[in-house]
Amino acid sequence: MTLQLDSDGHLRHLLTLEGLPKETLCRLLDRAGQIRDAALGRAHKRNSLLGTTICTLFFEPSTRTRSSFHIAAQRLSADVINFDASTSSARKGETALDTLKNLEAMGVRGFIVRHPEDGAAEALAMQAGEGTTVINAGDGRSAHPTQGLLDALTLRQAKGADFSKLKVLIVGDVKHSRVARSDLHALRTLGTGEIRVCGPASLLPDDGTLEGCATGDDFDAMLEGVDAVMMLRLQRERMEEGLVASLDDYHARYGLTAGRLRRAAGDAVVLHPGPINRGVEITDEVADGPQSLVLRQVSNGVAIRMAVLESLLS
Amino acid sequence: MTLQLDSDGHLRHLLTLEGLPKETLCRLLDRAGQIRDAALGRAHKRNSLLGTTICTLFFEPSTRTRSSFHIAAQRLSADVINFDASTSSARKGETALDTLKNLEAMGVRGFIVRHPEDGAAEALAMQAGEGTTVINAGDGRSAHPTQGLLDALTLRQAKGADFSKLKVLIVGDVKHSRVARSDLHALRTLGTGEIRVCGPASLLPDDGTLEGCATGDDFDAMLEGVDAVMMLRLQRERMEEGLVASLDDYHARYGLTAGRLRRAAGDAVVLHPGPINRGVEITDEVADGPQSLVLRQVSNGVAIRMAVLESLLS
Amino acid sequence: MTLQLDSDGHLRHLLTLEGLPKETLCRLLDRAGQIRDAALGRAHKRNSLLGTTICTLFFEPSTRTRSSFHIAAQRLSADVINFDASTSSARKGETALDTLKNLEAMGVRGFIVRHPEDGAAEALAMQAGEGTTVINAGDGRSAHPTQGLLDALTLRQAKGADFSKLKVLIVGDVKHSRVARSDLHALRTLGTGEIRVCGPASLLPDDGTLEGCATGDDFDAMLEGVDAVMMLRLQRERMEEGLVASLDDYHARYGLTAGRLRRAAGDAVVLHPGPINRGVEITDEVADGPQSLVLRQVSNGVAIRMAVLESLLS
Repeated sequence: MTLQLDSDGHLRHLLTLEGLPKETLCRLLDRAGQIRDAALGRAHKRNSLLGTTICTLFFEPSTRTRSSFHIAAQRLSADVINFDASTSSARKGETALDTLKNLEAMGVRGFIVRHPEDGAAEALAMQAGEGTTVINAGDGRSAHPTQGLLDALTLRQAKGADFSKLKVLIVGDVKHSRVARSDLHALRTLGTGEIRVCGPASLLPDDGTLEGCATGDDFDAMLEGVDAVMMLRLQRERMEEGLVASLDDYHARYGLTAGRLRRAAGDAVVLHPGPINRGVEITDEVADGPQSLVLRQVSNGVAIRMAVLESLLS
Repeated sequence: MTLQLDSDGHLRHLLTLEGLPKETLCRLLDRAGQIRDAALGRAHKRNSLLGTTICTLFFEPSTRTRSSFHIAAQRLSADVINFDASTSSARKGETALDTLKNLEAMGVRGFIVRHPEDGAAEALAMQAGEGTTVINAGDGRSAHPTQGLLDALTLRQAKGADFSKLKVLIVGDVKHSRVARSDLHALRTLGTGEIRVCGPASLLPDDGTLEGCATGDDFDAMLEGVDAVMMLRLQRERMEEGLVASLDDYHARYGLTAGRLRRAAGDAVVLHPGPINRGVEITDEVADGPQSLVLRQVSNGVAIRMAVLESLLS
Repeated sequence: MTLQLDSDGHLRHLLTLEGLPKETLCRLLDRAGQIRDAALGRAHKRNSLLGTTICTLFFEPSTRTRSSFHIAAQRLSADVINFDASTSSARKGETALDTLKNLEAMGVRGFIVRHPEDGAAEALAMQAGEGTTVINAGDGRSAHPTQGLLDALTLRQAKGADFSKLKVLIVGDVKHSRVARSDLHALRTLGTGEIRVCGPASLLPDDGTLEGCATGDDFDAMLEGVDAVMMLRLQRERMEEGLVASLDDYHARYGLTAGRLRRAAGDAVVLHPGPINRGVEITDEVADGPQSLVLRQVSNGVAIRMAVLESLLS
């Protein structure tokens, strides 16, 4: 991936965490950690992107991720344009590339791209002009690098910087999940001691994604002694596609309950990228319980996005 | 309502005008009046909310109210996020509370909430974190406190601060109107001399809302000698529900015409929360005539919202 | 058009380029040229509209034009409100005038209006208050003055300020095009040597719009020796209306290919207002080729809109 790194090793785009040097990844985590600490006192407004226009270019709706990037950009004093490509020129038959080129010509320097197709952000980055930066906010099943970073930051805050002793369990629809792929990239780069992946066989990929991971469909067994449980969202489409029998059945086999969580280490933490289907992936008791870091993830998301925007654009 | 007042009597949330101490209410009116006078010269930008992120969280569409709050927040240099909950994660099954908690975790400190259900803003305020403020921008039929405040400010500017001599008539669909309820709360707290309420029996509430008001369905009779006529918007649903025979019939009985207005005091003023159904609630002649304060209400709306945001968040 | 010029010859509104004095038009082009040069180094933020609220009031969707104005306004530090009138109070039966009057009462000083009906922007300007400015961002088939200005700026940058020697060809659906009308107004005012118009008879107006232009339906013949080709977008509705047989047929007769372009002067330039129907009006080879100024037009669009907003509002 030399597309995202320039010859000096600086990030030009952020498309995936796959292959990103550990040093680069840790520098982003450090920066986000500092920003977060500074912000804890009171909302801070920085001037680092004053006069820089950033566009959230979403070809797939996601109000949450968009809001997180929007807030991050505002905190850096950037000007933000929301371009909802599902209700715009896209309907007039314009290609994603033409849309980007036009906004680039208007002076937009940073694009936050969400797209349903694998590789869409990379394709746009390849065509982007000199001073333009593309940040992948999720493409197909491939990557969601800022989610991977914020999950890594959340784990690091909870468990320390040494990942070599950690046992982490990822649970659910890994097959269709860009979150899982970016989490796996980050966990491997950070040298996680043991990565386990659990889900019904129909929702686990068989293409090398899980190389080096212990995999299985027995949630109770996989939970034994883990330090962190990273739950994935179950899209309701999976039932319509026949990959999951029913929500009740899914919950019975892969729902994280307080009882089940006791199989993990006593100080195990629980993550979920949201939005949660309460009562499906996680019970209310666990989602709102003391081991849940769900809202911490959301806070870290803004800090990570500030760090990424600042690193790439200022 | 201790939820909206802290132990020192400071406003923490603004959920309803019911039970709000007269002193608190008048302080907001005073502040809004000052802001408005200052703004009359030229648009002013204040820095009081610089670095504060505010979210308009609307579970029911209302471009006007949203714009008014948005402009008010911008004038105070706040960062604003529009979260349209009808086209967002709400569709993914996320609860209103989860949405608020997530945005709170992103650093949003003020929520402007519009919701179709009674008590929704209060329910969110009860769950909101320490430094978070909820402002009710209309919930069900219950309350629309900033509308009540702006109507009170408009009346006070026109008629002076002593409400004890005033005769005020509220006309229309009081039963389904949060505007009417907040107006009644404000008028009572300000010690209005006489409050009359007029509308077809099918559109008047029979639950104590109108306690202490003179009520009736004869518009001409009720108009005699009043100092202010507060017209309500008629939602077209009322016809489909069979509560109103037809728009023509409604206009014939409850439409404010120039002829009818002559029954009121010579210097009577006319208010309407907008958007007006011209030719239904009011004729063009009255809506655009010298006694109409409709646009003054809109201007006061921005001033009131600036005063509220500044009081609660800075 | 005294509505848009005050008695001192200053622009108060920008509704059309028709009848706009050459001096006024050139002053806007000069200003935009300066802004563009200054912006080439790095994005600049100016303070000229700090504290001024501007509203994009679109009764017809157009994400591109709206984004261009939005970015222009942000660069001048204005506060911007997007009012999408197709999903708002307009649905509640409010008239365009009531919407404008309400936003004006909220303190909006500049309105960027897009409307499907001819004369809509002018009608609003006639009713606007003292300190309010209306900028037409496209009304019906009548006018799109900022597009006319940006096209003129683009031509001037490429061909110099003396238009008297230029041969310019406009191609396509002139009949339904506000872009073509504003281009014609600008080209005439700037004293263009020869204006040619080419398209199928069904898409050329017969109402005096083309007075003084050489017209015809033979694209190859009309292309001979021209210095600039201004292509128009073909709306797909034209086929449904039977005005065009098919996209393939249209492309065969009026599509600009590299081969055809060789009939024009060797240094001829190609313009298109976008979004391009690639393979219909223009081939990829031409659209992305060295003679295409399409993206330059987009950049100039922001500069022109900054110049217009600054001239009219600061």
